[in-house]
Amino acid sequence: MRDMTDYARGAAYLAGDYMPIAEAKIPVTHWGYRRSDVTYDVVGVRDGAFFRLDDHIARFRASMTRLRMTPPETDDEIRAILHRTVALSGLRDAYVAMDCLRASPPPGAPRHPAFAPSYLICTAVPWVWVASEEMIARGMHLMIPKVRRIPPESFDPRVKNFHWGDLTEGQFEALDAGADFAILTDAEDCVTEGAGFNVFMVAGGRVVTPARGALDGVTRASVLELCAEEGIPTEIRAIPADEFRQADEIFGCTTAGGIMPASRIDGRIMGNDRPGPLSERLRQRFWARRAEGWHATPVDYASA
Amino acid sequence: MRDMTDYARGAAYLAGDYMPIAEAKIPVTHWGYRRSDVTYDVVGVRDGAFFRLDDHIARFRASMTRLRMTPPETDDEIRAILHRTVALSGLRDAYVAMDCLRASPPPGAPRHPAFAPSYLICTAVPWVWVASEEMIARGMHLMIPKVRRIPPESFDPRVKNFHWGDLTEGQFEALDAGADFAILTDAEDCVTEGAGFNVFMVAGGRVVTPARGALDGVTRASVLELCAEEGIPTEIRAIPADEFRQADEIFGCTTAGGIMPASRIDGRIMGNDRPGPLSERLRQRFWARRAEGWHATPVDYASA
Repeated sequence: MRDMTDYARGAAYLAGDYMPIAEAKIPVTHWGYRRSDVTYDVVGVRDGAFFRLDDHIARFRASMTRLRMTPPETDDEIRAILHRTVALSGLRDAYVAMDCLRASPPPGAPRHPAFAPSYLICTAVPWVWVASEEMIARGMHLMIPKVRRIPPESFDPRVKNFHWGDLTEGQFEALDAGADFAILTDAEDCVTEGAGFNVFMVAGGRVVTPARGALDGVTRASVLELCAEEGIPTEIRAIPADEFRQADEIFGCTTAGGIMPASRIDGRIMGNDRPGPLSERLRQRFWARRAEGWHATPVDYASA
Repeated sequence: MRDMTDYARGAAYLAGDYMPIAEAKIPVTHWGYRRSDVTYDVVGVRDGAFFRLDDHIARFRASMTRLRMTPPETDDEIRAILHRTVALSGLRDAYVAMDCLRASPPPGAPRHPAFAPSYLICTAVPWVWVASEEMIARGMHLMIPKVRRIPPESFDPRVKNFHWGDLTEGQFEALDAGADFAILTDAEDCVTEGAGFNVFMVAGGRVVTPARGALDGVTRASVLELCAEEGIPTEIRAIPADEFRQADEIFGCTTAGGIMPASRIDGRIMGNDRPGPLSERLRQRFWARRAEGWHATPVDYASA
């Protein structure tokens, strides 16, 4: 029996077993690592409650199906595992991931992914903000790098995946340019997404987000829902980089960050070098709705 | 002290320590897995000797530099580690990989790859043929899938990487079509590479390989060298898919396979549904040169 203090830095479930996060490891021979043959999802826990838990599980299942992965756990079992993993960690604010990855074909089987069994890993670690509190207060400094987002024709971005080489390269270009985050464009020079977050721009009083080339984010859907509640018009369409650079406001959104306003893009200062008024209004509204229990599912801490 | 029988299925070096392959595991929190922030190389060992060891180490170093990875080991140290890893495994025929991956930023550091240290993993496992002996004897059955190869503008294919989602999808399309391997095209409908191997076609007596969108393969370079020795003209240029489908012969090449002739492409039977004569001549010449010690470095088995 492990001491519960081992779980202080997080908890994990790995193919049937629960363990402290530090013990959750993958063989270097597994294709989930060696071929990035893996999909995942992340659900946030704030103040002891999941946000849109069933939406994340539904998207995760759709991603697994798209990749022809069939781990043994049902959706109900995944839900119970996520509760128990968070409960074991004891965390009230947690970043909770579910990964499904392929092992490798058994000896003698063809070296084809169809012969490699897939398995589930769930982890709960202390909440980490994608953008620091300082960045959110002053507004994120964004830039558009040379590297292009991997196109949907190569990998469907709606299947949440670890093919982050382009996003990582973008983050290095951002570092070189003195910016916080890179926003990648596609081959048509239209905006897609940042490293782990969707983007919106505000132009002419409308809130606009790219139609293609990015994850169908759950927080993105929540922003569109908030705008509908607030009577703010929205558009989902292609956003050319040149139009994006001239936006009135820009913000990002993600599970581990909520709504993250920007104040600079490619060196251009937007507004007063502070988060834009509509972005800030939506951000505050987002957390106010969360505090009211919007889409919340309390964690079953008794399941530990 | 471990019993040497633990090493029967392979050996590994991981960030300073040697261990049986089954013990070589990566934390699920490391970005080498979670963001596929990793590069690698593979050198083959046949009959107790590496093939083009220094060429693989040089390419590996170039890939690491391109990704701004600086593991503590020098090239000389990597060479010594590879010798010792193979020696520990006792294998005379081995598939030997070197990976460099990023961990994750330490607590409190910015969540940027520049703050995540990188480390080295080397593994030696029993030799596996990319194409089975049966496939090589009858010729591989190839097909061109709908999925497109990740373009160089998104990830430089000369940096050997685990962004295999497109290749994996291609392998499922190949399975559905009753073929052995998918050969992916780029956005211009030109041929790039297969899942882990470069491709060549023979047309009008010339041996042709794509100029762009594929790994600068070490075995590919060896094929070009062999052709020069044999007085066979070669070309490195774009190959439209339609031209590829009409080739006189097609073959693939890779570390774990040497030269692998094909006999079918998209259902079309080439020649007599057998490996083409020039492909087969090059394949036999390749292994004959290998048997002569071409580019060979004997493994230092005393280093175990």
